[in-house]
Amino acid sequence: MSKLTPRTLSGFMELLPAPQQQMERMMEILRKTYSLYGFTPLDTPLIEASEVLLAKGGGETEKQIYRFTKGDADLSLRFDLTVPLAKYVALHAGDLAFPFRRYQIGKVYRGERAQRGRFREFYQADIDIIGDGSLSIVNEAEIPAIIYTTFRSLGLRRFQIRVNNRKILTGFYALLGLTEKSGDIMRTVDKLDKVGTEKVREILTDDFAVARAQAEEILRFISTSGTPETVLSALEGYRGRNDVFDQGLLELGTVVRYLSAFGVPAENFAVDLTIARGLDYYTGTVYETTLLDHPEIGSVCSGGRYDNLAEYYTDRKLPGAGISIGLTRLFYVLNEQGMLNPELPTAPADVLILPMTEDLSPAIALATTLRENGIRTQLHCEEKKFKAKMAYADKLKIPYVIFLGEDELAGGVVACKDMATGEQTKLDAAATIYRIKAGLAERERGSVILG
Amino acid sequence: MSKLTPRTLSGFMELLPAPQQQMERMMEILRKTYSLYGFTPLDTPLIEASEVLLAKGGGETEKQIYRFTKGDADLSLRFDLTVPLAKYVALHAGDLAFPFRRYQIGKVYRGERAQRGRFREFYQADIDIIGDGSLSIVNEAEIPAIIYTTFRSLGLRRFQIRVNNRKILTGFYALLGLTEKSGDIMRTVDKLDKVGTEKVREILTDDFAVARAQAEEILRFISTSGTPETVLSALEGYRGRNDVFDQGLLELGTVVRYLSAFGVPAENFAVDLTIARGLDYYTGTVYETTLLDHPEIGSVCSGGRYDNLAEYYTDRKLPGAGISIGLTRLFYVLNEQGMLNPELPTAPADVLILPMTEDLSPAIALATTLRENGIRTQLHCEEKKFKAKMAYADKLKIPYVIFLGEDELAGGVVACKDMATGEQTKLDAAATIYRIKAGLAERERGSVILG
Repeated sequence: MSKLTPRTLSGFMELLPAPQQQMERMMEILRKTYSLYGFTPLDTPLIEASEVLLAKGGGETEKQIYRFTKGDADLSLRFDLTVPLAKYVALHAGDLAFPFRRYQIGKVYRGERAQRGRFREFYQADIDIIGDGSLSIVNEAEIPAIIYTTFRSLGLRRFQIRVNNRKILTGFYALLGLTEKSGDIMRTVDKLDKVGTEKVREILTDDFAVARAQAEEILRFISTSGTPETVLSALEGYRGRNDVFDQGLLELGTVVRYLSAFGVPAENFAVDLTIARGLDYYTGTVYETTLLDHPEIGSVCSGGRYDNLAEYYTDRKLPGAGISIGLTRLFYVLNEQGMLNPELPTAPADVLILPMTEDLSPAIALATTLRENGIRTQLHCEEKKFKAKMAYADKLKIPYVIFLGEDELAGGVVACKDMATGEQTKLDAAATIYRIKAGLAERERGSVILG
Repeated sequence: MSKLTPRTLSGFMELLPAPQQQMERMMEILRKTYSLYGFTPLDTPLIEASEVLLAKGGGETEKQIYRFTKGDADLSLRFDLTVPLAKYVALHAGDLAFPFRRYQIGKVYRGERAQRGRFREFYQADIDIIGDGSLSIVNEAEIPAIIYTTFRSLGLRRFQIRVNNRKILTGFYALLGLTEKSGDIMRTVDKLDKVGTEKVREILTDDFAVARAQAEEILRFISTSGTPETVLSALEGYRGRNDVFDQGLLELGTVVRYLSAFGVPAENFAVDLTIARGLDYYTGTVYETTLLDHPEIGSVCSGGRYDNLAEYYTDRKLPGAGISIGLTRLFYVLNEQGMLNPELPTAPADVLILPMTEDLSPAIALATTLRENGIRTQLHCEEKKFKAKMAYADKLKIPYVIFLGEDELAGGVVACKDMATGEQTKLDAAATIYRIKAGLAERERGSVILG
């Protein structure tokens, strides 16, 4: 029979077992952390009716969408988790209690040009808090704590949560009489990190006809830096001239004030007035998170406050706040940078049992006992040489190998080899289990990411 | 603005938060159980190149596939997890160690006619063990243990794992000189439960021209029942006349012999000679699992041994054994039958904190402490009446509500109400945490399924 060459589509991540185990660990930590903050897991279809998914219409995204027909249905794969959330909340509003806090970790699809480190199928890990009519600023103040706990739980230390408030920017540009240009200006300033001050000044004056003096004031304003308290007191100088600005300043003050009660250390937080987030729908606090040793990666967790989640589906006003982690890209980058902890177990099993007797019952019974004790166990009963079986354990990095021969059975003991140290014990089953559990706990002590 | 009516596609399961929590529990149990048996998690793309996915070609499935083009790529959504596994193993064989044991819980797509309880997007939860060239029968003997542990962990008691061996059937039909008709006969006999003995006899004699006497012998043979030992000794009567039959009998004997060492109780196991599994690619042991109180559901976990996983992609012979749980359908049926335990927590949080002071810092700090102690905590800071906040906790079934007012702060205590009993305590933070944790552990004691 002629064979077809197996292949995986370009832009689709498919991991080998060991890195997949690391990815699973990361997802488990995200689920745990998000749950700690009172978010409930959701799972929505990957396929939606195109008219529903594209209700908002237009934009860069539309060209990238996987859209197709099945029968007479016009269908699309979701390109983010926000639009499905909007649909979900609008559709099920009567069954939900508000504020509605959900997390979702799921794959989304964008037919981007394939290039290294860019994915067409990728996981997003989102949380959102949706209010009915209104939503307290405390939720916006809580989000840095969620980001902090998430990345600390993954093992990172050197990261910074950078926060701004869109009302401050909107108010400030209104002060300058630049309201009509504020969208253009924010998008330009958002590029500051990438293109530099000179280029931003040039775009502002040349492309958007901002007066030279105003461009200077904008650049001076956004470069206000220092501790959150320093930035806040610099902003005090503008207070009282524009209501939107004042509101933004109040909100930012609240976010900063509650940081320490929320457990976010000062070194992991900054107010950064350059952040606007490209998306027009953010209306209050906005967030970005950068790895201090890898600024080139850009933000690994971003989001913000928006006023109207589901305006295309319902008249009900549903303000919200949320963040998203591009998990597949984050995993890819961490892996590339060698930041995934190679010490954590990635083996499919904790113990490999090599039966050395004709009758396999004792070995099988031991496997059953180990499993009842929560130890991940594999029996190796294939017709292979002893050496090949040890090489198998080595290749998979299975930490313990147990031999069970006539001698051990007669003596009521189990021979157990620690594959890392080479140390071999002959103890009874209970003592062996105790030893293995202690060893596994020791091996589990590290974090997924070396931060 | 005119609104678009939000909707979810028919045949796509989208759960409300409480049932979603139950689904998450089930998935977590499957991950844990599969891991205990030494299976490693895999995650493959939902989209594959059509030529790769359809390498086997033809069949009923092809019409149901979601197939589309993007740019000049001909793409399809996976319709099971077996074909992607075959591709994965063929593609990555050099990086894998055999036997390769993997589990995968993922969505698959089939554009079936929409009807109640049938899904177009549904989860399968699969395990497979793939050998390189050969695979020990012990793996086939282990699978009933995996099925048993999985369903027991979910909470079921009244279920039966029914096992047969295709070699016994193949050998038996060869004995009768019916080798050429054996496929047709097996598919017919497989319907016995649904259509009854009379109809099977009629199909065999009328449609497939099996002689009346042979049809009787077939019916007598497959209805052999009793304990596994009884069936095995009845089968002994046929031994020595056909090599394939003898091999099958030896294999079935091995599966039965190791059952108790694998921890499978007799009452959860049966040899059932009527089982053939429609799919032609099974070659050895085959499995079905039925809920004793709900035979109408059919098999909830099926699979078997196959000789060649990836013959369309590689010359390498890769025999395997595996099972699959149709998780979405199982969940749907359990829910319909009222078999999902309503007592297990489904709330998004364990504790809802209602701050009663102007300065929210103490309430926030308490939330941080609770979270550091692993308690899922939500702050409710919205501008709502006290009654509305209590109704919120009630609706979400949040087990504990904490009030923190000036009196409590002054007294160094926390007022905590158990929403189930109405009992309210005023204890310090540490004692409150202790009480909550004990209460939560108590609430977690039940199983997901009422079996």
